[in-house]
Parts: sequence; C-alpha cells; structure tokens
Amino acid sequence: MSESWQQYQMRVPYKDTDQMGVVHHGNYIFWFEAARIEFMRHYGFSYFDLEERGFYLPVIDVNINYKKSAHFDDAVGIFTKINSFSPIRLTFYYEARRINKEVSNQIDNNISIETKGELLAYGTTEHTWMNADWKPARIHKTLPEVYQILKSLTS
Amino acid sequence: MSESWQQYQMRVPYKDTDQMGVVHHGNYIFWFEAARIEFMRHYGFSYFDLEERGFYLPVIDVNINYKKSAHFDDAVGIFTKINSFSPIRLTFYYEARRINKEVSNQIDNNISIETKGELLAYGTTEHTWMNADWKPARIHKTLPEVYQILKSLTS
Amino acid sequence: MSESWQQYQMRVPYKDTDQMGVVHHGNYIFWFEAARIEFMRHYGFSYFDLEERGFYLPVIDVNINYKKSAHFDDAVGIFTKINSFSPIRLTFYYEARRINKEVSNQIDNNISIETKGELLAYGTTEHTWMNADWKPARIHKTLPEVYQILKSLTS
Amino acid sequence: MSESWQQYQMRVPYKDTDQMGVVHHGNYIFWFEAARIEFMRHYGFSYFDLEERGFYLPVIDVNINYKKSAHFDDAVGIFTKINSFSPIRLTFYYEARRINKEVSNQIDNNISIETKGELLAYGTTEHTWMNADWKPARIHKTLPEVYQILKSLTS
Repeated sequence: MSESWQQYQMRVPYKDTDQMGVVHHGNYIFWFEAARIEFMRHYGFSYFDLEERGFYLPVIDVNINYKKSAHFDDAVGIFTKINSFSPIRLTFYYEARRINKEVSNQIDNNISIETKGELLAYGTTEHTWMNADWKPARIHKTLPEVYQILKSLTS
Repeated sequence: MSESWQQYQMRVPYKDTDQMGVVHHGNYIFWFEAARIEFMRHYGFSYFDLEERGFYLPVIDVNINYKKSAHFDDAVGIFTKINSFSPIRLTFYYEARRINKEVSNQIDNNISIETKGELLAYGTTEHTWMNADWKPARIHKTLPEVYQILKSLTS
Repeated sequence: MSESWQQYQMRVPYKDTDQMGVVHHGNYIFWFEAARIEFMRHYGFSYFDLEERGFYLPVIDVNINYKKSAHFDDAVGIFTKINSFSPIRLTFYYEARRINKEVSNQIDNNISIETKGELLAYGTTEHTWMNADWKPARIHKTLPEVYQILKSLTS
Repeated sequence: MSESWQQYQMRVPYKDTDQMGVVHHGNYIFWFEAARIEFMRHYGFSYFDLEERGFYLPVIDVNINYKKSAHFDDAVGIFTKINSFSPIRLTFYYEARRINKEVSNQIDNNISIETKGELLAYGTTEHTWMNADWKPARIHKTLPEVYQILKSLTS
C-alpha cells in the first residue's frame, strides 16, 4: 500500500509557548486541524466546500503522544495521512516534525518519512460524517466522489 | 453618579502564560469577555438569553493598556462597568486586578475601587447591538427593558 | 478501592464555541488542565508550589473521547481522579459533564458518579515528573510527601 | 515619507470562528503578533534572535478596530508597518485584509495599500524594549543596529 501524505508547514507562534519555555501541549490539536484542512483541500475535498454543502466532520476522539518539545519560531511540518475510513467514519494520522528552517519554504509531498525531520509529536483524530440535520451521513451514497478519493488515498 | 461594578474572579490558567513567564497579553481580551458575560447575567440581561432572542453584541473596538504582569495561579478579579451606551452602542470598561488569594472566594460587588488590589491592565470594548438579520438594533425600542437596565446602571 | 474525585466547575466561555455552534474539541484539553491544577491544590500538592520548588509535570500523552456537544454558557463540571502513578509517571482521568445551572455554585466532592450530570467527554493525560535540570525525577525519593498523597488517593 | 510595509499571509483557521459564524475578535491580536514577528525577521531584526540576546519587547497597549467579519478559510493578509519609535518605545500598525484566494500564495511587499483587499480590522500594538533584567533598554545604545533599521523603515 502506498501512502498519500500531505505536509503543512508553519512557524511556532510566540503565543503557543508557556512558562516552561516550550510549546504548550494543547496547541498541537489546532496544528493538526490546520494540517487536516490543507490535506483535504490538497486532495480535492475541501472542508470549506463540504460545510457549504451541509456536511460536517466533527471530532469524536483525539490522541496525541508527545516525544520532544517544540520551541518558539521552530519551523514545523505537520505530515498528515488517512489512517482508516468507512462510509461513516474517518481517522487521520499526524506527525509534527521540526524541519530545517532553511528549507521551510519548500513543500515536497513526496518526501520520504525517514527524512522528514525530528519527531515532536504524533497523533490521530477520529471523525464522523454528519449531515445538515446533524445525523450521520453515509458518504458512499451522499458524497460518493469523496468516498472515491478516500479509497484512492489508502490503496 | 454612582457606578455599578461587577467583579468576576478567576485563577490564571497555565495555558495563558508564555515563555516570558507571564500572561500573554492576548488573553486579557478573553478574560474581559468572561467578565462581561457575568456582568450582564448579574444585572439581568443575560447574553445567552439575548442571543436566544435573536440579538447579538459583536465587538467593534478593543483597547487594552497593560500595567503589570500577571502570573500563573494568580487570583485575578476583573472589575467591569458600563462606560457609555446609546440605543445602538454599548461600551464596557474593565480593570484586571491581582487579588489576595486568601479572599479569592469572597465576591463583594460593593468593594471600593481603592481596595480592589494591584492593577494589572485596564481596557474597553465597544459593541453594537445587532438583530437576527445582522442589522443594527435600536434597543430602546426592541429591548426596552435592557435599555432601562443600562440607564439604571449609569445614573 | 475508593476513589478520590475532585470537581472543577466552570461556565463555557463564548470564545470556546466555533461555527458549528458548539464547543470546539480543542478546548477540553485546557479545561482538563484547569481541573488538574485544582485537583492538585485540593489534595495538598499545589502545582504552583511544585514548580516553585523546581519540579515539572509535562504532558506526554493526551486522549479525549467526545460523547455530546457542550454549548455556550453551559455549566460544566470537570470530575478528575488519579488513574495510575509510579515514582516517575502520573496519569489523570477526567470526565466533563453538563451540570444543572441552578446547582452550579454547589461543589460536592463526594457526589456520586451516577448523579454527576450528562457526560460530554472523558479522557486522560499522562505525565512524567521532571526536575529543574529537566531530568526525570523519581518522586518517591525527591517528593516523598507527594508520593504518599498519591498512594492515599488511590487506595 | 515612504513607508515600509510587510505582508503576512494566512488562512483563517476553523478554531478562530465562534458561534456567530465569524472570527472571534480576540484572535486578531494573535494574527498581529505573527505578522509582527515576520515583519521583524524580514527587515533584519528577528525577534527570536533578540530574545536569545536578552532583549524583550512586551506589549503595553493594544488597540483594534473591527470593520468587517472574517470567515473560516478566508485568505487574509496582515499588512504591518512601524508607526513610531524611540530608544525605549516601538509602535506597530496593522491592517487585516481579505485577499483573493487565488493570489494568496503571491507575496508582494510593494503592493499599494489601495489594492490590498477588503479591510477587516486595523490596530496598533505599543511595546517597550526590556533587557534581560527586565529593565527598560535604551536601544540606540544597546542595539544600535536595530535602531538604524527602525530609522530606515520610517524615513
């Protein structure tokens, strides 16, 4: 199985630090969200467009494991892929890695995982597809083109 | 003119600190919001209820002046009053003060301003009243009971 | 085994909502932090004091499972207990529950878990004890009084 | 006087929205901070480097005026310039503008202010230079190269 990663790059904002002098653990959940939204845009199922059409993807489970501290102004790449999916569920996997500041403006989605930089944290978010009535949406029927994209990204 | 203050008490959360070892300046805007919501509840015009009825009070201007740093776990009182109002506008004034941790569970809304503790920051937020169609609401006609409360709080 | 819970009560701030009209999932991690700090204060090992003495308790793993949406102005109780501990590790367990607004100023730490209100989310945070040199601290030797408290809370 | 603007570009994150369906007013203060840090890097006085050398630039006053709502996924440009400075003070001016999503990856620092896009909010932050002992630093003596940069940016 080939895996389709997407990289989202950012600088660690000052506000994300705390008095330990490192990034507060609570911020990674927001970094993962930004990376997820760029992942979806990149692969053709923009979350903005999906909400416009009346579909929502709320988070039902988050897990984050912290390996190294991130610091203010670090260049960080969030590497995202689909972990698993079904007609009603979708799970993303993320790795936050410290990347070389000099290359921070280069985005290479075919980058090999071994060379992605120092691992700071990894985690998953699990989601359910909901429709405008806030009922579970079975997307193989309601969003078949998105279901095909998810298939193609994991095969 | 007698002034009607309301005190909102809180502990400084760890997440509000940054790597300078003090509270990041951006957090006061959220402290003021929490204090404003308790002020409105205390004086009988709950913001939750107003939104339920289709009225909104978006912020159109914020000003904050910082005097002293706040630290993690400080007991802080946010002292709020109405600065000015009209049928379409409302301005709140706030003071964030470091209060004695030992008395932090006592709330005394008649506390004199001189004894409120060390001033950390003060500021204002200016708001406009909007209706459910996101048009300006002239509250002396649409929310006369709220207009009366505002009059009574500033006379 | 009797369990020692501690309840932390709060109102859902407006800023914690997002455009789905409910609390953004990322905020619970901060609610759990505030609850953990009050838990530690309540049981006699204040985190503020521990940091003053050169001990830190960084988070190495977070897991949150979301059951129901929380809304602006909801009264929420965060119920916290120790899940497990060792000389170098500490895991907390949390439940966020919607509580009756009318009783929101009553804090009853002996409240039975069945009557705590509607479950919104639950989760864990795992921590390691670190010393001022940012090395793992074996607290049965360096903080024996804290180690005793942890024993008493879980036996 | 020619003015030296710097543009910082971003996408509005989902977490920055609130239940009004627009960006919560409190987030602009963080957007301005990110823009200020990129401004300083661009013009050769990186804030990261200055802190490493023992200089700090805490905020002593913030003012923000809100004109239009920003929405999730909007491409936003923050346009920053120096408003005024002295050996001990520094004031930045910012404009947050909605920019064309199609051009959102083009950064043109010579862009004329008239064509920068729809104005969402503008504001200022005032700072004092502090040294490692948290005393005011008179930078024409302690950081003369930075003082020269500030002169060149405002003349």
